Amino acid sequence: MPPSPEHPVAVFDSGVGGLTVLHELLVSLPAEDYLYLGDTARFPYGDRTQDELRAFAIEIADHLVQTGAKLVVVACNSASAAAMPALERHFEDASIQIDVIGVLRPAAQLAVVASHTGRVGLLATPATVASGEYARAIAAADPHVHLESVACPDLARIIQGGFPFDQQVVDTVREYCAPLLTAGVDTVILGSTHYPLCAPILQRTLGRGVTLVSAGAGVARSVERALAARDLLNPQTREGDYRFQCTGDVESFRALGTRFLQMPLGDVTHHELSSAAAAQAVGA
Amino acid sequence: MPPSPEHPVAVFDSGVGGLTVLHELLVSLPAEDYLYLGDTARFPYGDRTQDELRAFAIEIADHLVQTGAKLVVVACNSASAAAMPALERHFEDASIQIDVIGVLRPAAQLAVVASHTGRVGLLATPATVASGEYARAIAAADPHVHLESVACPDLARIIQGGFPFDQQVVDTVREYCAPLLTAGVDTVILGSTHYPLCAPILQRTLGRGVTLVSAGAGVARSVERALAARDLLNPQTREGDYRFQCTGDVESFRALGTRFLQMPLGDVTHHELSSAAAAQAVGA
Repeated sequence: MPPSPEHPVAVFDSGVGGLTVLHELLVSLPAEDYLYLGDTARFPYGDRTQDELRAFAIEIADHLVQTGAKLVVVACNSASAAAMPALERHFEDASIQIDVIGVLRPAAQLAVVASHTGRVGLLATPATVASGEYARAIAAADPHVHLESVACPDLARIIQGGFPFDQQVVDTVREYCAPLLTAGVDTVILGSTHYPLCAPILQRTLGRGVTLVSAGAGVARSVERALAARDLLNPQTREGDYRFQCTGDVESFRALGTRFLQMPLGDVTHHELSSAAAAQAVGA
Repeated sequence: MPPSPEHPVAVFDSGVGGLTVLHELLVSLPAEDYLYLGDTARFPYGDRTQDELRAFAIEIADHLVQTGAKLVVVACNSASAAAMPALERHFEDASIQIDVIGVLRPAAQLAVVASHTGRVGLLATPATVASGEYARAIAAADPHVHLESVACPDLARIIQGGFPFDQQVVDTVREYCAPLLTAGVDTVILGSTHYPLCAPILQRTLGRGVTLVSAGAGVARSVERALAARDLLNPQTREGDYRFQCTGDVESFRALGTRFLQMPLGDVTHHELSSAAAAQAVGA
């Protein structure tokens, strides 16, 4: 099925964090329809190996394209860092013309543009930091920008746990921000799609002089340009629809998801990914 | 007791809406201590008469100054519109040197600066629109800017009710935005401190080309300048404390408040205002 303008834009993440990216897409490109998949059965991605993340990303992207997606957004930093070139090659090898857009390059570019001092901080999962992809993306954008990376093993999990505003988040944020304050950065990349939920706490800890950068706005512009280049922008003038699939429990996705999206959640259905089901069976 | 740098900045509102202003103060001026009062027993203010609102504002500001506030922020559009000059005169008459900062002038100035076309929209409570104060503030900032005002009787109440992200909000927002879309405004003032909570829904309805303006950032700058002018900026280098008083139920304030503040809520105590207690006794 060749992609057509009426088809949805697909967005996926390990959980609900990518809803902060979907949120930006719904605001910036309201005429598009969206299909969001949260791989909550295998959350968190932050401790997975690069090989696992590539396999997950290809499995999910295949499913989304088969469902009719005209473009796929990888709204997860860990998966973007591990799988972007592999995903592009995968569809090229299958002769499927589809744009795949990750969150990493847009965030790195926004950070380079935002920084005056050339000292940029990164808060991200261990998997994302270990991949070295942010350092490469920053160096590609401007080799004179210094990147100070902090691996945050707990933050996405605490936020996904449903308590983005409690004292534990404040204490965790303070610990992770300390090296960035010491390094004197003027810009910090929120290198997990979960982190925008605690942006106020981060901003208070880092101070007003530090610019927080997340991928959302950059991703929306990339998606718009990619769709326009293939004549795939949805011509409808009304607001588009959006719906959700998750690989884990539907009710907990719905409860958390509303908070991340800051808009009403519509239809949420369970979707079984074969390898996720196998992994759960082995784990059980 | 003359104000000293160690004293708190006080902020008050009819309910939890003003926490979106406190939020901005906590981020922009983290070294200050804050005392917030929510007059939840008399919420909403949006349908009150101008005389009632002036009496409420003076009673609350007196209490806050007696508690040791070094500056008072009226973080409520209805109260700012009705009571700002009366509050200033009240303290002048009592020979109390204290700055009182409202949300209306900062929001109007931000809107005039943000608009390119000179067509600005206002969403606010019936009391705020009826006061005509936004029209006056806009005209004072630039007489060539056209203001399109929409009185929104229900929106603050629905948001304070705890459901800022459901379909009722989407439908209500769409109804209130329709005249602004027809008028072709390029900037919209969120003329109630509750409305930033549904900014994503407003932005999606109005489109990315419309700039949403709320008072928070402008208020923070006004507070900083006012404190600096009187040598009242808190010199401490650690993050300040913040605490809460409300005139109604403490538990519902705490539950809603966390969502509005997007930070942990600390100490919340009940405070009985004499006239609020009298009003409740009459109402009961």
